[in-house]
Amino acid sequence: MEGLLISDNAKGGDTALATDFYELAMAAAYFYSYDHSNFPDSSKVKGIFEMFVRRLPKNRSYLVAAGLEQVLYFLMKTRFNNEQISYLRSLEVFKQVHDDFFKYLRKFKFTGSVWAVPEGTILFPNEPLIRVEAPIIEAQIIETYLLSMMNFQTLIATKASRIVTSAKDRSVIEFGSRRAHGPQAGLLAARASYIAGCIGTSNTLAGFKLGIPVFGTMAHSFIMSFEKEQTAFKQFIKTFPTGYLLVDTYDSIAAIKKIIKSRIKTAGIRLDSGDLYSLSVQARRLLDNAAGGKYSNTKIMASGELNEYLIQDLVSRCAPIDSFGVGTELSTSRDDPALNGVYKLVATRILPKFLIKNRRPASEKIHYTLKTSPAKKTYPGGKQVYRILENGLIKSDLVALEDEKEPQLEAPPLLQKFLDNGKILLRLPSLNGIRAYHLDQIKTLPQKFLNLDIVQESFPVSYSNRLQAEIRNFRPK
Amino acid sequence: MEGLLISDNAKGGDTALATDFYELAMAAAYFYSYDHSNFPDSSKVKGIFEMFVRRLPKNRSYLVAAGLEQVLYFLMKTRFNNEQISYLRSLEVFKQVHDDFFKYLRKFKFTGSVWAVPEGTILFPNEPLIRVEAPIIEAQIIETYLLSMMNFQTLIATKASRIVTSAKDRSVIEFGSRRAHGPQAGLLAARASYIAGCIGTSNTLAGFKLGIPVFGTMAHSFIMSFEKEQTAFKQFIKTFPTGYLLVDTYDSIAAIKKIIKSRIKTAGIRLDSGDLYSLSVQARRLLDNAAGGKYSNTKIMASGELNEYLIQDLVSRCAPIDSFGVGTELSTSRDDPALNGVYKLVATRILPKFLIKNRRPASEKIHYTLKTSPAKKTYPGGKQVYRILENGLIKSDLVALEDEKEPQLEAPPLLQKFLDNGKILLRLPSLNGIRAYHLDQIKTLPQKFLNLDIVQESFPVSYSNRLQAEIRNFRPK
Repeated sequence: MEGLLISDNAKGGDTALATDFYELAMAAAYFYSYDHSNFPDSSKVKGIFEMFVRRLPKNRSYLVAAGLEQVLYFLMKTRFNNEQISYLRSLEVFKQVHDDFFKYLRKFKFTGSVWAVPEGTILFPNEPLIRVEAPIIEAQIIETYLLSMMNFQTLIATKASRIVTSAKDRSVIEFGSRRAHGPQAGLLAARASYIAGCIGTSNTLAGFKLGIPVFGTMAHSFIMSFEKEQTAFKQFIKTFPTGYLLVDTYDSIAAIKKIIKSRIKTAGIRLDSGDLYSLSVQARRLLDNAAGGKYSNTKIMASGELNEYLIQDLVSRCAPIDSFGVGTELSTSRDDPALNGVYKLVATRILPKFLIKNRRPASEKIHYTLKTSPAKKTYPGGKQVYRILENGLIKSDLVALEDEKEPQLEAPPLLQKFLDNGKILLRLPSLNGIRAYHLDQIKTLPQKFLNLDIVQESFPVSYSNRLQAEIRNFRPK
Repeated sequence: MEGLLISDNAKGGDTALATDFYELAMAAAYFYSYDHSNFPDSSKVKGIFEMFVRRLPKNRSYLVAAGLEQVLYFLMKTRFNNEQISYLRSLEVFKQVHDDFFKYLRKFKFTGSVWAVPEGTILFPNEPLIRVEAPIIEAQIIETYLLSMMNFQTLIATKASRIVTSAKDRSVIEFGSRRAHGPQAGLLAARASYIAGCIGTSNTLAGFKLGIPVFGTMAHSFIMSFEKEQTAFKQFIKTFPTGYLLVDTYDSIAAIKKIIKSRIKTAGIRLDSGDLYSLSVQARRLLDNAAGGKYSNTKIMASGELNEYLIQDLVSRCAPIDSFGVGTELSTSRDDPALNGVYKLVATRILPKFLIKNRRPASEKIHYTLKTSPAKKTYPGGKQVYRILENGLIKSDLVALEDEKEPQLEAPPLLQKFLDNGKILLRLPSLNGIRAYHLDQIKTLPQKFLNLDIVQESFPVSYSNRLQAEIRNFRPK
C-alpha cells in the first residue's frame, strides 16, 4: 500500500527519481559518449540550458515567474540513494550499462551555476526564466523536476495575477485545494497565488510551512448536521466569534433573514451559489436595514466557480461583495491548465582535449546550439534580458547573449546569479518580499496587457544584433 | 528555504494539515456544539458522507474511479503532531478554542468505516465513489485530502481511458510529468494512466514505487550536444541497443535517411513535430525500403501535443505508428482539468442521549440530510449502487439506500466495505490487478459511451422508490 507522497529530506528523498526516464538514459549515454577516445571526459563538457515559454497559455498576455525557490532547494538537495540505484540497475534497458555509471550516480550532486529572474517577475514569451550551466549530465538530469515546478507555479501565479487584477480593491482568497491536482499541487497553488497578490489561502499546510494567512468559513455539512439552520449558525459563532456563515444550504435570502431575526452576531456571510450579483445586493440591503445597524459591518464574501471574467463583471456592476473565494478556476488554471515551458540546450562549452591534461585552458570552446524543427525553433546561446522602462512602464525588453557588452545594455539585467558551482549566492527573499516585488512589477505593465478582453499577441521584446546573426548563420550538420 | 514536498511517514507526516482550514474550524465547532447540555457528545454523532460527481468534465461520457488506495493509506496514517497543533493554537481565529479540543486533535485518528467502488470501476454522475461513516469530526477533517486525491486520479484515469480507447491496438505511454501540476501530480498521473490502460510511463518514480513499466527515448538536447546528428544517434545506440532515436531536431526525414545511410541499427524512431500522418507514412516507406530489410522491424513512435481526437484521426487513417507518447493533454486533462467531485453529508446517526450512559441502544436515530441550493441538490441517505448487465453490457444502475432489501436488488453491489472502524478489511488489489479489472470494465460499456464525437448526456441510472420518496418528503427546518 502506497501513499504516493514524494518524500523530502536532507538526503534528497524521492526527488532524484521524480524525473522522466530518458533523462537518466541520456545521462548514461553522455557518460559513455564523452568518455571515449574521440571525445573529452563528460565532466569536461558543460551544457548551457534555458527554460522559457514559447507560447503563453490561452487568454494570457504576460507571465508571472514562480517556483524558483523550490527548484534551488531541489538542486542543492537531490541525491541518488542505494535503493534507487538498485532499481535502475534492475531495468532491462540498463543491462549493458556498466558499474562506473552507477557509481557516478551514487556520488551525483549538482555542481553547476544558475541564473534566474526573481520570483514574481513579469515576463513575455521566449524570455528565459532560468539559465543553467553545468556538466552536461547534471544539467540534463534535473530537467523534468525543474520544469514541473516552474511550469506549475508560473501557470498559477499568472492566473492568480489576472484574478487579483480583476478584483481591484476587493480581496481574493485561494480556495482550490480540493480540485488541485493532488495534495502537493494544492500547496504549490497556494504559494503561487499568494505571490501574485491573493491575501491568503484555505490550505492549512501553506499556513504552517510558509506563513501564508489561512482563511476558512464553514461547509454545508456543518449546517446539515443540525436539525435547524439557525442552531448551526449559533453553535458556530459561539466557537468562532469572528467566523463567517455560509447561507446557501437551503435558501440564501431566507438564511440571512434567520440570522437577523435570531440576532446572531456575525462578522460575515458567504454566498456560494445562485446569481451572486442579485443575492449580494439583496443581502447588503437586508443587513444594512436590520434594526440598530447591528449588521452594517457584516461583510459579504462570494464564492462558487468564480474566475477573472465573472469577478470583473461583478466588480464593474459594483456588487457589494467584500471578498472573493476562488477555487477550481484558480488552482487548476482551468481555461488553460498547462504552461508549455521548455528547457533547451542553447550552448555547449567544451574544454579542448589537448588542454585538459596539461593546464587550465586560456579559453574554452563554446558551441551554440539550436533546434530547427517546425514551430519549435530556439534561440542559441546563453542569454540575458535587459528591461527598459519609460515613465515607470515597460517600454522594451532586449534579449542579448550573456557576454554582450553594448551601450544599449545599460538597463539592469533581469536574470540574477543564484547558484555558483552548486552553492547559493544570494539570500532568497521572503515570501512576503516576493509578493511585494510582484505587486510592484504589475504596476510596470502597460494597461493593454492587463485587459482581460483583448489578448495581446505581440510583445515588447527584441533581440540583439549578435543574437540575430547567430540564428542566420546556424547550419545543422 | 522550503522544498514544498509533502512528507509521508508512519506518523502521518504533513498530511493532517494538507486540508482546507474550515475543516478544522468545523471540527472545533462540532466538538463544542455536541458536547453541550442540549446535544450528545460529539463522538456519539456519526456523519455519513458520500463523494460523488455531479457533472462529468467536458466531453466525457463516463468516469473511471481511481485514487482509493492513497485515500485509505491517508485514513489509516494521518495524525496531528505537536508542532502542527502549536501552529493551530497560534492562530488568532482559534484563540477562544480551549485546550481540550487540541488534546482531542493530538489523539485524533480515523476510526470510521469506508465503502467504495474498486479502483478502475466505470461510473456515471451522481453515483457514489466513496461512502464514509465516522464520528462527524473525523468524517469532516478528512474531506479535502480525500477529494484532492480522488478528484485528480479519477480525472486522469477517465482521460487516459479515452486516449487508450482511441488508440485501439496501438500502445499509449504517459509522458506528461514536466507539465503535470508539480512532481507529485506527475507520479499520481502515471498511476491513474496505467490503471486506465496505458502500457507505461516516463516517470521513473512511478516505476520505482509502483512497478509501472518506464519508457524513455532521448531529448533534442542530446542530439544538439554533438556536432553531428548521426554521431549522437550512434553514441546513444552504443549505450542502448534497444533505444529509440528522436528524429525531429532539425528535419525528421533527413534524420531517418542519415540513420539508414549510416547503418545505425535502431529499434525505433520517434516523430515529435510536424504532420505526423504524412511523416509516419514517409518514415515507414524509407525504413521498409532500406537495403536488406534491416529496418523493417524498426518501430515508429509518435508524440507532440497528442490527444484522443488526434490519435483517433491518425488511427482511422491507418497511420503506420506503433505507439503514442501522450504528455500534456493526458497529465493535465487539458480539455477539462477539474473533476467536480464533492463530499456531502447524506445522513447523521445519533445515539439517543438517554441511552448513551446506560447501554448500547437497540436502534440509533438516523437523520437524512440534503442540500436544496440551486443546481447543487443532493440525494439523502447512505447509498449503494446495483449494476444490471445484459449480454455483458451495462443495462442499468439502480441507486438505492444502503439498507434497502428489495427483490430488484439482486445484482451485485458496486460499493465494497474497505475499512471497518479504521481497520482495513480487504486485501487491496495489485496495480496490475486494478488495470486488468478496468480493461474488463471498459468492455461492459455500451459503444455509445465510447464515442468521442457524441457526448452522452443521459445515463442508465435510476433511483429506488424509497430514495425518491425521501427527496419528496424532505423539508428544511
